[in-house]
Amino acid sequence: MNISPKVPIPTLERLATYLRYLIDLEASSIDTISSTEVEKQTGINAAQFRKDLSYFGEFGKPGVGYNVVELQSRIARILQIDRDQSVIVLGAGNLGSALVGYPGLGEQHFNIVGVFDQSPKKIGQKIFHIEISDIARLKEINASLQARIAIIAVPAHAAQSVAESAADAGVRALLNFAPIILKVAEGVVVRNVSFLQELAVMSYQLALDIRR
Amino acid sequence: MNISPKVPIPTLERLATYLRYLIDLEASSIDTISSTEVEKQTGINAAQFRKDLSYFGEFGKPGVGYNVVELQSRIARILQIDRDQSVIVLGAGNLGSALVGYPGLGEQHFNIVGVFDQSPKKIGQKIFHIEISDIARLKEINASLQARIAIIAVPAHAAQSVAESAADAGVRALLNFAPIILKVAEGVVVRNVSFLQELAVMSYQLALDIRR
Repeated sequence: MNISPKVPIPTLERLATYLRYLIDLEASSIDTISSTEVEKQTGINAAQFRKDLSYFGEFGKPGVGYNVVELQSRIARILQIDRDQSVIVLGAGNLGSALVGYPGLGEQHFNIVGVFDQSPKKIGQKIFHIEISDIARLKEINASLQARIAIIAVPAHAAQSVAESAADAGVRALLNFAPIILKVAEGVVVRNVSFLQELAVMSYQLALDIRR
Repeated sequence: MNISPKVPIPTLERLATYLRYLIDLEASSIDTISSTEVEKQTGINAAQFRKDLSYFGEFGKPGVGYNVVELQSRIARILQIDRDQSVIVLGAGNLGSALVGYPGLGEQHFNIVGVFDQSPKKIGQKIFHIEISDIARLKEINASLQARIAIIAVPAHAAQSVAESAADAGVRALLNFAPIILKVAEGVVVRNVSFLQELAVMSYQLALDIRR
């Protein structure tokens, strides 16, 4: 596999979109697609699609198109989601619990191996099959769990300190649901799930719509 | 207020980021900031910050900087999140329940006024103070709720049909948590919360890191 550090992040984001679409196609028993069809269904234009794939070698056959199953498995391999990866969830509130029960994670081989919280009322309880651990013991427990990906599902005021504890415990990638901007050490990747931001953008778009 | 259709979406997304940062600053009792400070804290460069604001008129004073409270309230007004907006949640599973209980929504004046599900076991139950309604009655009930924003928190296989019902019920903006690409009628805005995509991108970045 060709892993090049020069692949732009938007390309990676689009790869994840193509993958989602390919999974839908496979479920609909469609064997082959064209880049024009990809454009029609995902809204990403055909030339962009071909360019995105070109970072990773040869795909598809001229005049025939792309084999759905093959393309899907190659993209999954590129994104490393064809293999099991351990993930811990930090925060066992409503959102943390919803994430532990979210089937989509397991489908992409993200295995939740631990859930942490600071509340004495929660520690020792179970979410689905996973026991909630004391977040004060994160470093010690993650020494055996070896998760390098953590999902931050704590309230905004606690997120920065939780992020630091996670980095200290060997976590190298943080998916942050808290509506704050995390400061992390070099070598730690953060991606934000900003649904409040998405709502604010839509809110502006709606207002535009009314004034038109 | 100057509402121009030409404002790029990334500018709107960054406005939402600035707002988040300004709220943190206000909580820390900081009165004034410079664009350099914004760059340091948000990672968005100072020139970009000034350009983003320039779409909406004059902000800040040369040599003094930006008043935190004033900038915050102007951005909130631009994004229309300084006024109450009704939101309905479609899907009363773990994710839908977590959203209903999420305090950040109310802080930005997104008021959840209804929750819908198709499961007879859930209909009539309450999540926090809101009773779950039958999604088959969405159009009828939303005729009085008048929500124009809906959050889709149903499983992937149900999301497309739920999106269509929502549009039919007068919803004009959909925040989609389901990992599929929704097709919607013109005049309906969709934004996706793709945390599986975010995880996949991080997964690639982690793998790169190992090979370095």
